[in-house]
Amino acid sequence: MTAVNEPLTTELTDDEIFSAHEGGKLGVGITASLADPRALSIAYTPGVARVSRAIADDPGLASRYTWAHRLVVVVSDGTAVLGLGDIGASASLPVMEGKAALFKTFGGLDSIPLVLDTTDVDEIVETLVRLRPSFGAVNLEDVAAPRCFELEARLIEALDVPVMHDDQHGTAVVTLAALRGANTVLGKRVGDQRVVISGAGAAGVACAKILIAAGVGEVTMVDSRGIVHAGRDGLNPVKAELAEVTNASGLRGGIAEALRGADVFVGVSSSTVEEELIAGMAGDAIVFALSNPDPEVHPEVAGRHAAVVATGRSDFPNQINNVLAFPGIFRGALDAGARRITEGMKLAAADAIAAVAADDLAVDRIVPSALDPRVGPEVATAVALAAQRDGVA
Amino acid sequence: MTAVNEPLTTELTDDEIFSAHEGGKLGVGITASLADPRALSIAYTPGVARVSRAIADDPGLASRYTWAHRLVVVVSDGTAVLGLGDIGASASLPVMEGKAALFKTFGGLDSIPLVLDTTDVDEIVETLVRLRPSFGAVNLEDVAAPRCFELEARLIEALDVPVMHDDQHGTAVVTLAALRGANTVLGKRVGDQRVVISGAGAAGVACAKILIAAGVGEVTMVDSRGIVHAGRDGLNPVKAELAEVTNASGLRGGIAEALRGADVFVGVSSSTVEEELIAGMAGDAIVFALSNPDPEVHPEVAGRHAAVVATGRSDFPNQINNVLAFPGIFRGALDAGARRITEGMKLAAADAIAAVAADDLAVDRIVPSALDPRVGPEVATAVALAAQRDGVA
Repeated sequence: MTAVNEPLTTELTDDEIFSAHEGGKLGVGITASLADPRALSIAYTPGVARVSRAIADDPGLASRYTWAHRLVVVVSDGTAVLGLGDIGASASLPVMEGKAALFKTFGGLDSIPLVLDTTDVDEIVETLVRLRPSFGAVNLEDVAAPRCFELEARLIEALDVPVMHDDQHGTAVVTLAALRGANTVLGKRVGDQRVVISGAGAAGVACAKILIAAGVGEVTMVDSRGIVHAGRDGLNPVKAELAEVTNASGLRGGIAEALRGADVFVGVSSSTVEEELIAGMAGDAIVFALSNPDPEVHPEVAGRHAAVVATGRSDFPNQINNVLAFPGIFRGALDAGARRITEGMKLAAADAIAAVAADDLAVDRIVPSALDPRVGPEVATAVALAAQRDGVA
Repeated sequence: MTAVNEPLTTELTDDEIFSAHEGGKLGVGITASLADPRALSIAYTPGVARVSRAIADDPGLASRYTWAHRLVVVVSDGTAVLGLGDIGASASLPVMEGKAALFKTFGGLDSIPLVLDTTDVDEIVETLVRLRPSFGAVNLEDVAAPRCFELEARLIEALDVPVMHDDQHGTAVVTLAALRGANTVLGKRVGDQRVVISGAGAAGVACAKILIAAGVGEVTMVDSRGIVHAGRDGLNPVKAELAEVTNASGLRGGIAEALRGADVFVGVSSSTVEEELIAGMAGDAIVFALSNPDPEVHPEVAGRHAAVVATGRSDFPNQINNVLAFPGIFRGALDAGARRITEGMKLAAADAIAAVAADDLAVDRIVPSALDPRVGPEVATAVALAAQRDGVA
């Protein structure tokens, strides 16, 4: 396998990109034979009637004799697609097809995109409730904040299957795994660290929550209006909730005030951070500049001051890539028959990713390669066990 | 290829049926490479962003760079599944997976089942309108009559893609093709024939319509209350409409009165027909006893009196099987970029099926084998040309 951190030797051309996407990237295959009249009579009429009747008599058999119980629907309304913003459902579809391809490759799961021509939370929930017998899990993708928080919560409540907004929790899980790797290299403990998160959108909020669940010393959230604190006017409900559990030091101001003396920086916004602010962090600082395609601070600049630097890009060391998390999380949840995805399952996923990296840890190898085939199965196993532990399987 | 009309040598066992359906019958495959970091950068981030941006700028490009424009959704609410009736969405799924497998095998089309936990026409239409960017065509399946008529009409109106309720039109197309084959063998003309249709559900209504469009001499519809005629009380809107264009002879009574002297019998109900009624049909009668698994009259019994006998079963000669029609109809419609499926496209499909059978026509070979690989492509070509002729492509 080629090392993932090896920079691409030449820029991607439009030709090679568009030809790879021609006709879409997915196809449906058949796992039963239709090759002769007997096979046809088994797979379709009259044989299939016995299977349908059996499920009608015992609904639990659907999980054994249909593909639905292991099918992940990748659901988007196209409102926050990559760095492109609200480009609509149809234009988001190439991304969702790519996501389905990643589910197959790294999780061994069948997955189909369902892109929606509505951004109304009630309507999206209603649509998926009606389609419930068709699938086994929901991966929400590229839905704009703060609507994504309500949508995810409503879907979890309405459906008895695993639901996860990957832009939130996939990012959060891999960020925590990377922090564990960096801390092991540097001999630090998460309980002693103050982490500054720049960006209070989907990824930022989820990062804050998982870091708090993992016992981080303190989180300082910064959004476009500065440090999030309980005294600030006009906080939306999600930020108001976060204000209660972050910023115990009572900091005020913006990113400069937040970063002064901080141990860890997690950038999940599209803002930029000046070199001098990185220079003003605590000794042996850790910088995760995850904005794509332009990190908040160039990794070479950050590297002059920080002990460990990671980005979201494949052409620098330490790529924090959701693909390390979501295929294994869904695979583990479905393997266990979990009804939902718990905080414990996410923490277990982060630990499993960190454990794979532990074999070969270094300042430029704090997470496994995004293409490392060991990660998906390890995460799946850990998540399935956590599901049983948490009583949701 | 094994001859389709060869009877199965042994009964299907539960073991072989259930093991063939274990885990479902479909899988999602990837048509783009994800094998190395460069391929991943092309198929997913950052490369995919250029494709999404291009579609956002020019929505027409979605048909080139996503799988949606060639994806058939097989939609059911599970209310009229095979001979099992209203068994619900989940229990209908094995049938819908089988249908998707047939689309792939005989039409080369990707297809996914969407089964719905609602039977409300408004809600089903609304659901598919919201999902519109996700697919390219709708195959409605196993929806109970008379709701199926309204649902199909509403979907055709609401969506700019091919929509077809296969239980109606697939059956009708193959029935017409079979009648053309029988007539060629017997030297008869459709314009001279009176056809009795037993059953005024989805298939019966569509058979009546296509036969009338094909110029049949007269249609006599019979339902559970007897011959459908304009003077009858309590006709639903679909039957009232049919009463206007059928039964020009003004017959009254039941199946016995309808069949006396009739040229063709088309059975698409679950009723039975006595031998003496078949004996009382016109000379060189044609009998299509399509009920499954039990034909309205056993083909050996019908064969004592009729010149040509067909059933819906694979273990007797002349199997009238929808699979001869729907894969090619959808393939042709999608190849042509048709916005809907016209009567002309259905008639063209019937002619194409009849043309394949014409090579080797006999009283026990009035339609091609359900597994004949020539049929799908021939139907697709004929349907695509008809779409252009009808101005919907």
